This record gives sequence, structure tokens and C-alpha cells, in this order.
Amino acid sequence: MQLSDKIKQTIRDVRDYPQPGIVFKDITPILSDPQLVNEMITQLKTDLKGLHLDAIAAVEARGFIFGAILAHALNVPFIPIRKAGKLPYKTIQQEYSLEYGTAAIEMHEDALQPGWRVLVHDDVLATGGTAGAAANLVRHAGAELVGFSFIINLSFLPGELNLLHQFGVNPQYLVTY
Amino acid sequence: MQLSDKIKQTIRDVRDYPQPGIVFKDITPILSDPQLVNEMITQLKTDLKGLHLDAIAAVEARGFIFGAILAHALNVPFIPIRKAGKLPYKTIQQEYSLEYGTAAIEMHEDALQPGWRVLVHDDVLATGGTAGAAANLVRHAGAELVGFSFIINLSFLPGELNLLHQFGVNPQYLVTY
Repeated sequence: MQLSDKIKQTIRDVRDYPQPGIVFKDITPILSDPQLVNEMITQLKTDLKGLHLDAIAAVEARGFIFGAILAHALNVPFIPIRKAGKLPYKTIQQEYSLEYGTAAIEMHEDALQPGWRVLVHDDVLATGGTAGAAANLVRHAGAELVGFSFIINLSFLPGELNLLHQFGVNPQYLVTY
Repeated sequence: MQLSDKIKQTIRDVRDYPQPGIVFKDITPILSDPQLVNEMITQLKTDLKGLHLDAIAAVEARGFIFGAILAHALNVPFIPIRKAGKLPYKTIQQEYSLEYGTAAIEMHEDALQPGWRVLVHDDVLATGGTAGAAANLVRHAGAELVGFSFIINLSFLPGELNLLHQFGVNPQYLVTY
């Protein structure tokens, strides 16, 4: 069976979460299958080999899971990006739009070295708002945004096009709905 | 140089975070040193070998980072424990005390199988409130709590004794202050 089919068979649909009418793609059953996680990490390493990454930045909290494993597997720094107020040291901040209102994420100001080639990882690509804000933090730190990596792309939302247009980078993902 | 000294040299003290008078131990510089992360994971694997773990449960958000890498390295399921309302499927919940008031964490009700030998991981052991609540979730799910693993133990706080008394398990950690 193809890896993408295995992943889709393992993801759990949760109806009406976080709001009525939404079908949420729950990746926690993947995390309970270490052999599948292994195969996914192997695939991600292959997909990302040509990017010559210096670091992986990921957005809390779900993005930390595969982001940290992937950074470890590729032997590069892992850069946590968190909700405003959650990182202890001096930060740079980026606001982004939600359906109603705005949110802000932060990265430590010294987390990246200028010129580093950085990948932004998160578990799900929806509208691309969070990943785009993370990419802006990478650029504001003087580093180069060279890729986006997701587990899931929700193709009925405009995330893929939004990120391509804003950053000139084709997002990568393991499965698409 | 000993691993514990390398870790202490890399951890950053951040004064007056999250409150005036607190010196926060910032582990993000460790995450920027993949060689050090490797050594820490190797040490943790050695420390935990005798426990014959079936799963590692970790508390969001910082606990996800080493927790996920460690579960991957040990080839066991990774069980995310999150703040109330953040997990999409049916959950079991545990309240615990904070300095002022209470908080609650949750785990998916089907995350653990009865009888599984489970380790609770978090980055810092302070009073043990969060880790203890996570351990109660493990037990409520019918699994066996066989260990606690932390990066940092703050020995001027009663976390180590609290967890030992409540659960009969000696918490493990890589460095102590």
C-alpha cells in the first residue's frame, strides 16, 4: 500500500470539531503507530534532501511533534515558534488574520542565523495563515525561507496557492484532501 | 565534559520570566544544537532501557519536543496530553492545582491500551503538578505508570518527592538545579 493511503487510513475524522460543520483531521492515531511514523520520516527526509536545510521551524503545539522528530532525523536545529508570550527570551512577533480577528506568533530573536536555509513545518495546511506568519518570522530574522512541509493539505482551502504566491515556494505535504 | 555539564552550559537563564523574581531555565538553545540533542537522546534511551515501555505520554507544548523524539527513537507510540479543549476526539480529563486556582489537561480516551507500560515526559520538573496530573490520566486509562523523565529537575521545589510519594516511582532527569 502507498504511504499516502496508509496515512489516510490512519487519520481519524472528527465531526463538528472545533466548530459545528467542520470535519477535523485527527493525526493522533498516526502517533500511536511508530512504524508508520518511521515511514513518514523516511519519506520526508527524501522529499527534503535537496533543500540543504540549516534549520526547521515549527509552530506549537502539534507542529512540534513531527517538526522535532524531523529536525533530529536531519541533524539540524529545531526552532520553536509559539503563541505570543510563551517564549521566555527576546522575541520577534508576527500577527496574522483568523476568521474573526487576529493572532500573533513569536520566535526568539536569536533563534536563526542570517542566511540560514529554513523549512517551516506544521501538521495541517489550511488557509496558510499560520505557516505564512512563521515564514515571515524566518525572513524577518534574516534567514532564507526555502520550503514548507506539512503532513496534510486541505486542497478545498487556498493555503497552497497563498503560500506559493506570497513566498514563491511550493508547499510539500504527504497527503491531500 | 560530562553531558550534564554540557546541558547546563547550553541552557539559558532568563530573569523575571514568567514573573518578577523567577529565573527561567530556557532550553531552546539546546534545540539549536543537534549534536547535543543526539547525546541527550542516547542518554535517555540508556536510562529508560530497563523500563520496557509501551508508550511515552508528554504534555504540551515543550514536552512534545523531546517526548516525540524519544518515542521515535524508542519506536513506541507518542501520546499527546493537552490543555482542556485542545484534543479533537473524546477525552478523559484531570484537574490539578496551580499557585492560584486550577488547570486541566486531557488525553484521548482511547490513546492507551490497558496494561501498557507508560512513561510521562516533560521538560522541567518543578512542583510536579502537571506531571502528576498526566500520570493520573495514564492510570485512569487503565495503563501502568512506570516512570517520569525530565530534562531538568528544580531541586529547590518539591516535585521529585511529590511524584515519588504519589506514584511510587523515582523521577529521572538529566540535570538538576
